[in-house]
Amino acid sequence: MIQTPYLLFLGDAPDALAAKVAQGIKDWRPELAVGQLRLDGCNADMGLADMTIEEAVAKGAKTLVIGVANRGGVISGNWLDVLKAALRHGLDLASGLHNHLNDEPELVAIAQREGRALHDVRIPSVAYPIANGKKRSGKRLLAVGSDCSCGKMYTALCMEREMRNRGMKATFRATGQTGILVTGSGVPLDAVVADFMAGAVEYLTPDNDADHWDLIEGQGSIFHPSYSGVSLALIHGGQPDALILCDEPNRPHMRGLPHYKAQSLELLRDTALLLARIVNPDCRVTGIALNTSAMDEVEAAEYAEKIEERMGIATVDPFRHGAARLVDALE
Amino acid sequence: MIQTPYLLFLGDAPDALAAKVAQGIKDWRPELAVGQLRLDGCNADMGLADMTIEEAVAKGAKTLVIGVANRGGVISGNWLDVLKAALRHGLDLASGLHNHLNDEPELVAIAQREGRALHDVRIPSVAYPIANGKKRSGKRLLAVGSDCSCGKMYTALCMEREMRNRGMKATFRATGQTGILVTGSGVPLDAVVADFMAGAVEYLTPDNDADHWDLIEGQGSIFHPSYSGVSLALIHGGQPDALILCDEPNRPHMRGLPHYKAQSLELLRDTALLLARIVNPDCRVTGIALNTSAMDEVEAAEYAEKIEERMGIATVDPFRHGAARLVDALE
Repeated sequence: MIQTPYLLFLGDAPDALAAKVAQGIKDWRPELAVGQLRLDGCNADMGLADMTIEEAVAKGAKTLVIGVANRGGVISGNWLDVLKAALRHGLDLASGLHNHLNDEPELVAIAQREGRALHDVRIPSVAYPIANGKKRSGKRLLAVGSDCSCGKMYTALCMEREMRNRGMKATFRATGQTGILVTGSGVPLDAVVADFMAGAVEYLTPDNDADHWDLIEGQGSIFHPSYSGVSLALIHGGQPDALILCDEPNRPHMRGLPHYKAQSLELLRDTALLLARIVNPDCRVTGIALNTSAMDEVEAAEYAEKIEERMGIATVDPFRHGAARLVDALE
Repeated sequence: MIQTPYLLFLGDAPDALAAKVAQGIKDWRPELAVGQLRLDGCNADMGLADMTIEEAVAKGAKTLVIGVANRGGVISGNWLDVLKAALRHGLDLASGLHNHLNDEPELVAIAQREGRALHDVRIPSVAYPIANGKKRSGKRLLAVGSDCSCGKMYTALCMEREMRNRGMKATFRATGQTGILVTGSGVPLDAVVADFMAGAVEYLTPDNDADHWDLIEGQGSIFHPSYSGVSLALIHGGQPDALILCDEPNRPHMRGLPHYKAQSLELLRDTALLLARIVNPDCRVTGIALNTSAMDEVEAAEYAEKIEERMGIATVDPFRHGAARLVDALE
């Protein structure tokens, strides 16, 4: 569907977290990214070669992917010049922002004239059903976060890689724009109409082999007031057998909300289990995944050990140390 | 906006609950309904005069309101003939269904030809923001349900009436199609895109006088797997100071889901409070509202007394006995 390879557009991302779409592609499909394009003031860096649109085209790039997700999803004015130039030089555009490429008259006009495609991966492509809550065959795991952007997608992708290496049946199920751009399919849950959220998750994780695991990408947090409804729809639509608690240590407050302090892992465990057991009384918390990217090796190892002792459950940074112990707990 | 009075169309509603839109208008704005129109197989009855479209027009009706909400919100084929006839006889149409009047080519064509309006009150008319979670001035109460369709809207409307009778500042805040049709404004929360649900609730309940109460209509239930995400967005977007637990006694299972048993009021209290205190640590459960419509007078009174003793909190059927005790608890 989306032509590869990509040029990753980082725009004027204020920090690395804002460029998580680009980071996800770079980490999980690095062979698909020929380089990165950054504007003045960009504080994100994928470690890829910086290049102009012309250079990317010369390297074989077929699509410019907007790799930055800013709050509210707006396509800012100072990006438009770059996007128009990309179309004129023969690149398609792909975006996971709430505001759609296809709603920008200038981009639509140029794309039509040049025969280029505008991919809005956040637009739901299916008329999802209302959830029926019925038990499906197969197993499901859901990554639940103490906050937004704390490692839920990475945790599920790490576990998929580890399980496939072991010969287990496992499928990462993307629920956000990055996951969809990385894997080529999924449900853009943030953009689904409220009544159909849980049904979209059921649709994404249908009946499967008894020994197959769906590894469902979580969204938001049941503690984050802006997005908690989406998080609960994942719990109730996903009917998880297993939960992984995802946390980035030492955040001073909830992302984007300085007036909300971070909540404890104990409260996350108890609240998520309480809600999950409404739909699956056998649901268990099987592991804790830490995002220790801000720590050095020693600090990260000590912190994980401390949490494991406190919580009594396998605790790792799956991206740093591998997901083996999280998968062991499922076997 | 919507021309009155109404002819209430009950379609082939399988039971009274399915016609809750019509029932709401009849109970809260009876002066706006000239009569009802029912198809073969309809098991709902508003106690209004049954009439044809021609008779309703003769009585002065200006708009046919689709008073029945079927699962999934589809405009069924055997309704179309009635709706087309209504347009041809000079009535506008108003609907709160997920499937829109404006998406039915035949209706759109006739409406254009006849100069009639098609009102889809479920279509969000505002670009709602992402919730910012900030504390607003004024007080807010939210009706939370043990299930769908158990009396949340009625409870909030009863409390509004009682509070206004006492000279208190109070505003019912509609979050569903019936409430919007009854009061003329509100947010069709079921139809809002997931990421903006909590923001829509913040928009609906802005800063207000310190002694003003918003009485927020709840939706679904945190226990109902099809809709729980919407319910949590109401809790986190509404930042309620007070919760009323709403319940219809003796339901054998969750509405539409025979495989999910009803949950206890204790679990509803504890779960709703746990979630509400994430955004408002001072939130309290101030009362319990029972829908005792299936009980006789004695049975209803005894049941409420039993629940009040068990839960230790003011318990009434506000529609049957008035909301005085629920309002007392706020003063």
